[in-house]
Amino acid sequence: MTKVGLIGLGLMGKPMAKNLLKAGFDLTVMSRSEGPVIELETLGAKRAESYSSLGAVSEFVVTMLPTPAVTKEVVLGPGGVLGGMKPNSILIDMGTEDPALAREIYERAKEIGVSALDAPVSGGDVGAIAGTLSIMVGGDRDVFERSASVLGAMGTNISYVGGAGSGQAVKAVNQVMVAGILATIAEGLTLLERSSVDTEAALEALMAGRAGSNLLKAKARQILDQSYAPGFKVDLHLKDLGIVEAYARENSVVMPFTQLAKSYLEAVSYSGGGELDHCALVEVVRGLGDLSLG
Amino acid sequence: MTKVGLIGLGLMGKPMAKNLLKAGFDLTVMSRSEGPVIELETLGAKRAESYSSLGAVSEFVVTMLPTPAVTKEVVLGPGGVLGGMKPNSILIDMGTEDPALAREIYERAKEIGVSALDAPVSGGDVGAIAGTLSIMVGGDRDVFERSASVLGAMGTNISYVGGAGSGQAVKAVNQVMVAGILATIAEGLTLLERSSVDTEAALEALMAGRAGSNLLKAKARQILDQSYAPGFKVDLHLKDLGIVEAYARENSVVMPFTQLAKSYLEAVSYSGGGELDHCALVEVVRGLGDLSLG
Amino acid sequence: MTKVGLIGLGLMGKPMAKNLLKAGFDLTVMSRSEGPVIELETLGAKRAESYSSLGAVSEFVVTMLPTPAVTKEVVLGPGGVLGGMKPNSILIDMGTEDPALAREIYERAKEIGVSALDAPVSGGDVGAIAGTLSIMVGGDRDVFERSASVLGAMGTNISYVGGAGSGQAVKAVNQVMVAGILATIAEGLTLLERSSVDTEAALEALMAGRAGSNLLKAKARQILDQSYAPGFKVDLHLKDLGIVEAYARENSVVMPFTQLAKSYLEAVSYSGGGELDHCALVEVVRGLGDLSLG
Amino acid sequence: MTKVGLIGLGLMGKPMAKNLLKAGFDLTVMSRSEGPVIELETLGAKRAESYSSLGAVSEFVVTMLPTPAVTKEVVLGPGGVLGGMKPNSILIDMGTEDPALAREIYERAKEIGVSALDAPVSGGDVGAIAGTLSIMVGGDRDVFERSASVLGAMGTNISYVGGAGSGQAVKAVNQVMVAGILATIAEGLTLLERSSVDTEAALEALMAGRAGSNLLKAKARQILDQSYAPGFKVDLHLKDLGIVEAYARENSVVMPFTQLAKSYLEAVSYSGGGELDHCALVEVVRGLGDLSLG
Ligand SMILES: NC(=O)C1=CN([C@@H]2O[C@H](COP(=O)(O)OP(=O)(O)OC[C@H]3O[C@@H](n4cnc5c(N)ncnc54)[C@H](OP(=O)(O)O)[C@@H]3O)[C@@H](O)[C@H]2O)C=CC1
Ligand SMILES: NC(=O)C1=CN([C@@H]2O[C@H](COP(=O)(O)OP(=O)(O)OC[C@H]3O[C@@H](n4cnc5c(N)ncnc54)[C@H](OP(=O)(O)O)[C@@H]3O)[C@@H](O)[C@H]2O)C=CC1
Ligand SMILES: NC(=O)C1=CN([C@@H]2O[C@H](COP(=O)(O)OP(=O)(O)OC[C@H]3O[C@@H](n4cnc5c(N)ncnc54)[C@H](OP(=O)(O)O)[C@@H]3O)[C@@H](O)[C@H]2O)C=CC1
Repeated sequence: MTKVGLIGLGLMGKPMAKNLLKAGFDLTVMSRSEGPVIELETLGAKRAESYSSLGAVSEFVVTMLPTPAVTKEVVLGPGGVLGGMKPNSILIDMGTEDPALAREIYERAKEIGVSALDAPVSGGDVGAIAGTLSIMVGGDRDVFERSASVLGAMGTNISYVGGAGSGQAVKAVNQVMVAGILATIAEGLTLLERSSVDTEAALEALMAGRAGSNLLKAKARQILDQSYAPGFKVDLHLKDLGIVEAYARENSVVMPFTQLAKSYLEAVSYSGGGELDHCALVEVVRGLGDLSLG
Repeated sequence: MTKVGLIGLGLMGKPMAKNLLKAGFDLTVMSRSEGPVIELETLGAKRAESYSSLGAVSEFVVTMLPTPAVTKEVVLGPGGVLGGMKPNSILIDMGTEDPALAREIYERAKEIGVSALDAPVSGGDVGAIAGTLSIMVGGDRDVFERSASVLGAMGTNISYVGGAGSGQAVKAVNQVMVAGILATIAEGLTLLERSSVDTEAALEALMAGRAGSNLLKAKARQILDQSYAPGFKVDLHLKDLGIVEAYARENSVVMPFTQLAKSYLEAVSYSGGGELDHCALVEVVRGLGDLSLG
Repeated sequence: MTKVGLIGLGLMGKPMAKNLLKAGFDLTVMSRSEGPVIELETLGAKRAESYSSLGAVSEFVVTMLPTPAVTKEVVLGPGGVLGGMKPNSILIDMGTEDPALAREIYERAKEIGVSALDAPVSGGDVGAIAGTLSIMVGGDRDVFERSASVLGAMGTNISYVGGAGSGQAVKAVNQVMVAGILATIAEGLTLLERSSVDTEAALEALMAGRAGSNLLKAKARQILDQSYAPGFKVDLHLKDLGIVEAYARENSVVMPFTQLAKSYLEAVSYSGGGELDHCALVEVVRGLGDLSLG
Repeated sequence: MTKVGLIGLGLMGKPMAKNLLKAGFDLTVMSRSEGPVIELETLGAKRAESYSSLGAVSEFVVTMLPTPAVTKEVVLGPGGVLGGMKPNSILIDMGTEDPALAREIYERAKEIGVSALDAPVSGGDVGAIAGTLSIMVGGDRDVFERSASVLGAMGTNISYVGGAGSGQAVKAVNQVMVAGILATIAEGLTLLERSSVDTEAALEALMAGRAGSNLLKAKARQILDQSYAPGFKVDLHLKDLGIVEAYARENSVVMPFTQLAKSYLEAVSYSGGGELDHCALVEVVRGLGDLSLG
């Protein structure tokens, strides 16, 4: 049985871990909070006492942590997981990070005979639970191929997109579009809810035509019902747009739309909604028509 | 054989007319330019000599004209098609107009015993050719039902969304989202083409995840190849965003994101690209990184 | 004593009328509401019973009405003031209109031997009261010179800027900058009020450096005190930005920044603040950090 | 004769140094390039061989360096100027930095008995040459008072605005407004140059009314003549807007206008104009109407 270690049992990592167990992997986990670790133990996973010991017992290590800073610390920091990993093992970082960090991890891993993939995902908590994530993978192609069964336990659309950092580059593009589509959905649905039309029929028509998008399908109900349990948190999306910004600067791409969408997300975050689902940015559009003017 | 008249044989109207013929309708057409009329005659359609005579011979009249001003003139103006129509016949305007015009046509038709539907479409010239348009229909439900076979010859996703004007209201929402999604695709793909990744694989991954959209599917190739034959013309989209603006004002909805997309489309139009496909707005994003600074 | 007629005794027109009286002109007035007319009568003005009779008794007619639609009706409509005016008299429209209307009035006046100037103003109600308005004048230069004493009674910075419509063109540019500067002041001062600095000293420093502007001087106190009595009403500024938009389209100028400022003013208007002073747009910036998230 | 040290003889620092000499101070300088150092020696300044030796011989040290990173290195780094300074001497950082760095320098200085002021400036190279800078000062009030003669040699509008970091906070607000005003001037003047009006007269009228601003006065000619020698460099303004962004985030202020202005500046920088004067952002507005569409 292939030994897999997974670090970070959050909204995404926990269901991914469960899918690894279901697929028959011999799973060792670590996370900051106790709760999810215990939950996974109940389901048959082992618990590691340190990042480096988790590294030492794993053929594959998957990381799914909140920010590049945390990932860097946990992977490359003193006592980090990479330090414990054995030659020929594979490190798969599935969090969203900047392409530069992905390349740094790749290089540092190579020095000690470990192979690294950057394999960020799209599809939300729903996709993580269902095991239908879209996974964009950067790194060496043969390593990608050797990782097929592990990745296949978590996602259904798994694409090799190029050398180290390429997965993160595509994920940056993904986050650009997700932010922009959400912003335009927010404006469109606000207009729709002010119109006296059959909303369900309208949504179906919109989905079928040029305006149709995976996000409209996934989020329209939530937006119209104003129910913002995450899902993908506003503050994580803001973190990703920070990554996008740096990457766009490196590549000399100007992004006023993405910046405007970022401002909308900031408005939600500054108003106390950083932990809400990112589709809460519709509240900006609603709020703009309902200012309190003393 | 049901008699259908169709006015406006442009990018959309011509293939729609062909599909009506294919479906076995007895078709009479008119348009401004000769070419498409002759082409349709060859295929079995008749030609009318005046709007009102076209109205007089038709059980259903379909209009597919470029702007509300033209539609108003052709339908309601002196010598217009409505004047010739017989009681119990049905007028279906499938162009994109403001909801107010749809309601005006509905009322004016009612006065003379004619029923009117506003039935704007989405799906582009590709959908018009394939007969797979998404059609959003406003008006009386029984009239919608009586029109099923006519609409069904042109589209596959046909939704009744409410009373007169509702179809246009939903289409306004559609155009908001189409503009916004196009803008965000423009930024995303510009970033993508600066990254050294496998573009085809990346597009597939993007389509499968949260960033996936019908527009990305339809337009990514065109954008990457910089081939902007229309499709849906920049100036028509600007016309639609003018409709959106007025409708949003009526409904007190603020739309900064849509306004920004409108500015980009204006940039293309003012630079001489009003007849290009609207996905040419990507050239704004490219141009912003490539100003000529004397 | 030169006979002057003035129509429109609003926030601007009333103090302008008073300054004409003070300067010794023989003044006849009209307005929609009774109050200001009575007030001006008390101060020595006459009252006209119809626009055309006001035109008939005046060597100079000044109009100061809220919108192009109203101005067009009052000046060119049936029973309008132009119809009553005698050859060689001068019509000075000081409201903000589109350059096209200014040119139309100029032509229509010319046909009956009347000279017209477009002479919009800047300086706010404060400038109108103090008689220190900045006036941008379009039309024939000799007519401008013949109008010097009338204009001089109301403003101190009076510039001839070119042929008919030129005054309105410059005023359009003025309104672009006023909207943009207000928006940036809104963001800047919101940041300032969150900082623990000596606000008065900071404002003085800002005024003295590159950030200094006439608007900052005029509005900073009002903004910090959240006191939004007009001044210049939000809805009038929106009207002006509608003019700007059409004029920019005619001249193929794309204005994303101005559009965004327009969205902010719309947000205030849609939230019920259309009659507040335009500096109330700062409430949008404040509101974006204080959304109600259920 | 009071001994002053100055580090950083760039566009701003060099004329400031000359004004210190003119005011009779005993000046020691350092910079990266030789040219300006030799020029100042010719005028009577001394040259230091190291930052710490410059610190050791100075009662006042002024720093005028391009970025927070450089300032941090030169002031706090190993061999930095602070390490050489004697108790009771005063360190005045006049560059634009983040408020957090100002507070850090203040604390580190305090530990060794040195007093620090953050004293960023506004007024451009023109103000630096003329000695008419606007200076916003944070730190201890008594230290501000003891520094009066030094600051007075370089500026005329010198405001004490609060404790350590306050000067930089006000400067951040200044840079917000400068960016925004520049963006709106760009749109306004582009519209103006398309209008057939008397430009000089128009500018005078604009300056006198509500649209008037110090930037319009300083930059209108340059913009209309497309002559972009700096002045204040695009890349320095971008650096400042990075500072603004972080400071706005700390204070939960959403800034879509500032972001849009930043995008305009980025467009200039990415197009190769990072060393041009920031008023070159007008080229974005011009470029948007003149895309090359293959
Ligand atoms: N293209 C697309 O992808 C989509 C378009 N639409 C909407 O469909 C409508 C039609 O668009 P589209 O087909 O692209 O536009 P086109 O400009 O291609 O076609 C318009 C047609 O109307 C004809 N026409 C114009 N004026 C008159 C008149 N007075 N009398 C008779 N015929 C006239 C034109 O003639 P001539 O050939 O001489 O110009 C042309 O054939 C618009 O409302 C558009 O917004 C909706 C969804 C998608
Ligand atoms: N306020 C400002 O700071 C500035 C305003 N302007 C421009 O000046 C113009 C006037 O603005 P402002 O004074 O603020 O606007 P107000 O709304 O305060 O005043 C408009 C006046 O016109 C009267 N009026 C409306 N319709 C008619 C009519 N059909 N016949 C006669 N009188 C009528 C109104 O009467 P009633 O009292 O009954 O409403 C009111 O007295 C506008 O074009 C504005 O854009 C320009 C620069 C600055
Ligand atoms: N220019 C303007 O209009 C204004 C600028 N400011 C601010 O003032 C500061 C300076 O700006 P400005 O003068 O325009 O910038 P410049 O780039 O013209 O000058 C910076 C100077 O610092 C020198 N320098 C760079 N690194 C070092 C180092 N490690 N040690 C010593 N010297 C170094 C540079 O040397 P070298 O010559 O070799 O490059 C140069 O002389 C910035 O913070 C800016 O934001 C504030 C208001 C207005």
